[in-house]
Amino acid sequence: MDLQDFFSMKARRVGPSIIAQMARMLGPDGISFTSGEPSPDLIPLLGLREAFDRAAGQVSLFSYPTTAGYLPLREWIAEWMSREGLAPAWLDPSCLILTNGSQGALNLLAETFIEPGDLILTESPTYPEALLAFQREGARILPVPVDEEGPIPEKLEERMAGAKAKFFYTVVNFQNPSGCTTSDARKAAILELARRKGFFILEDDPYRYLRFEGKPTKSYFEMAGEDRRVVYLGSFSKIIAPGVRCGWCAFPLNLKDKLLEIRLSLELCPPALTQAAVFEFLRANDLRAHLVKLAREYKNRRDSLVQALNREASRLGLRLSVPKGGFFLWGTCEGIADMFEFAQYAAREKRVGFIPGRFFFPLEGEGADSIRFAFAKAAPEQSREGAARFADALESYRRIFSPGRNLQ
Amino acid sequence: MDLQDFFSMKARRVGPSIIAQMARMLGPDGISFTSGEPSPDLIPLLGLREAFDRAAGQVSLFSYPTTAGYLPLREWIAEWMSREGLAPAWLDPSCLILTNGSQGALNLLAETFIEPGDLILTESPTYPEALLAFQREGARILPVPVDEEGPIPEKLEERMAGAKAKFFYTVVNFQNPSGCTTSDARKAAILELARRKGFFILEDDPYRYLRFEGKPTKSYFEMAGEDRRVVYLGSFSKIIAPGVRCGWCAFPLNLKDKLLEIRLSLELCPPALTQAAVFEFLRANDLRAHLVKLAREYKNRRDSLVQALNREASRLGLRLSVPKGGFFLWGTCEGIADMFEFAQYAAREKRVGFIPGRFFFPLEGEGADSIRFAFAKAAPEQSREGAARFADALESYRRIFSPGRNLQ
Repeated sequence: MDLQDFFSMKARRVGPSIIAQMARMLGPDGISFTSGEPSPDLIPLLGLREAFDRAAGQVSLFSYPTTAGYLPLREWIAEWMSREGLAPAWLDPSCLILTNGSQGALNLLAETFIEPGDLILTESPTYPEALLAFQREGARILPVPVDEEGPIPEKLEERMAGAKAKFFYTVVNFQNPSGCTTSDARKAAILELARRKGFFILEDDPYRYLRFEGKPTKSYFEMAGEDRRVVYLGSFSKIIAPGVRCGWCAFPLNLKDKLLEIRLSLELCPPALTQAAVFEFLRANDLRAHLVKLAREYKNRRDSLVQALNREASRLGLRLSVPKGGFFLWGTCEGIADMFEFAQYAAREKRVGFIPGRFFFPLEGEGADSIRFAFAKAAPEQSREGAARFADALESYRRIFSPGRNLQ
Repeated sequence: MDLQDFFSMKARRVGPSIIAQMARMLGPDGISFTSGEPSPDLIPLLGLREAFDRAAGQVSLFSYPTTAGYLPLREWIAEWMSREGLAPAWLDPSCLILTNGSQGALNLLAETFIEPGDLILTESPTYPEALLAFQREGARILPVPVDEEGPIPEKLEERMAGAKAKFFYTVVNFQNPSGCTTSDARKAAILELARRKGFFILEDDPYRYLRFEGKPTKSYFEMAGEDRRVVYLGSFSKIIAPGVRCGWCAFPLNLKDKLLEIRLSLELCPPALTQAAVFEFLRANDLRAHLVKLAREYKNRRDSLVQALNREASRLGLRLSVPKGGFFLWGTCEGIADMFEFAQYAAREKRVGFIPGRFFFPLEGEGADSIRFAFAKAAPEQSREGAARFADALESYRRIFSPGRNLQ
């Protein structure tokens, strides 16, 4: 019995997650800059434990949940988004579905929209787990390059040429992996293109509240107003805890029935109990104060890693771009022919982990010299040690594998 | 912008869940025999609350979970399945994935195996939410009729004719909706067919432990042994609580990588915290004693509803088949031209809910006079009142819509 004969085309199209592989390769004594994961010591454990206790006392939460998710949390989110200026006037809780993290929402939208062969616009580089879901469904990706102001509208138009795309997927604040934030001017220009060319915008915004400096941006979702072509994805993974697996998507009402039909066929619904625990946490705690604390801590971690890497490795050809928030440092490193091979070497021999940038590019052959460091889980002393190990790895790798080369 | 142009074929193929619709139609003062849902008073709330408290004290559970799910629970399940004689010798925790209820597992397998146009064998009647997932992926369904011993092997062979099917989906104990249990002889015959014709078996077994009388059956999964063509689906929804959204699938090891790749692209992973809470519950409580209690209570409910319906409605043409376990009574009711219309009438006018049997048949036009009652949530006094309302609805519906007809 040859299993390959049994697999669907989508099963054949999907492959392993490189980020998960790199994270596993490192082992427990490694210093990891691999995963875009909140720092465990910044998870509000006490508040969450109390919140779970309040939720677990409600017998109704142990029955089958409603398909869209726990209503009080959807109400809370709708109100919060409106107060934050992120939502158009028409948003109400019936335009919200709670999902198993953002990935659940990305998948729901991939299943709803993508027919094999469809064109999907994404940033380049972009979040690879989104690409996994889109490519599994058979999407052909049209990559739109980003600079420090976000995706470049002229390039988007150029890449589309005369073709039709279903949607543009974009991470709008402190993008994973490049750290860029889309300016409001860029958003306006891209919205205008979306209208003209007839595509949806999938606005993924998990890092919005981890801003270290500068002013908050607007959202496509709010800017589009009555032009109902934006789906907004939010998540509690980065600001409360990824383990609660609670994200959401907010969408124009005319998408609701179809999204709920697909969702039911996928999983009925994720657990209302964890959604209720998130709601109980939000009710009993000052989220604003928590976010201020997170931003302060993560800024400190960013600064420590930037300083340490610059000190140790800029002389070796590492160039970093410094984001105004989020979890990631993005950079380039000259003179490494195969960054994946180097990353494996560094993980194995020097116990330091990072992600070769090329895995974030939809097209093969791009981003060969780029590199991503996640600083969220690294305390300052780990950053110093990790940066030293990185520089050590770089030097010894070059010595072994390209001894003729000397950048100094 | 016409939304239809944006939807994938799968989005167009999926439709609303009739069971969810019927359940909603009834309203709060109705007596519902619609949903296959455990009785809230049989959910072990105290034990679950303690279990959630123990789980929520572990910070690691608030980080991103592993893709396959919480290892201690997978170990517990592997051991339990082995002790229960349900597992082949090769089963170990790496052949198990925890899912968002059984639906999560059904969907995972649908995505992995089904290519549009593929033939999938199911029982007829069968669980409609499984059909939703299979048909969404574009499966063509080959229905295999069941009798009181389960699916009929000769019919299965006849229906397949010379064609290739990817798998046979079967609910082996106290099947939803017909209540039938597949005998071990039938399993052996169908396994032999599976070998000969080269298809997988998807064995769905959520009701196994809700047996009221008679001896437990074997599993396809164990019977197949080294012939690794069975995937076994289990669930805590019916025996602990559906709200924990915790099911599992157990599979031959060579399926593991592909299932995990698909799972990651769908949702990364469901929350480990709820999986850990299930594990903590199982550790601290006597599951065997709990199952004995559940079986006694649900038997009582079955008996009450059977008695009440026979007393009130057998004179009106209702014929019931009495299952040896599970949640469902299945029957036929003569002289109703449109059972869906009647069900809507009964819900609206007499505040009693049940499901027209035809929605459980993969092919249109079958099961026109069949009907499903779920007894799990109905306490004996509700069954008496509900049966009276059902008889009242039947009489008045016949009077209004077919006044010439008189069965008495």
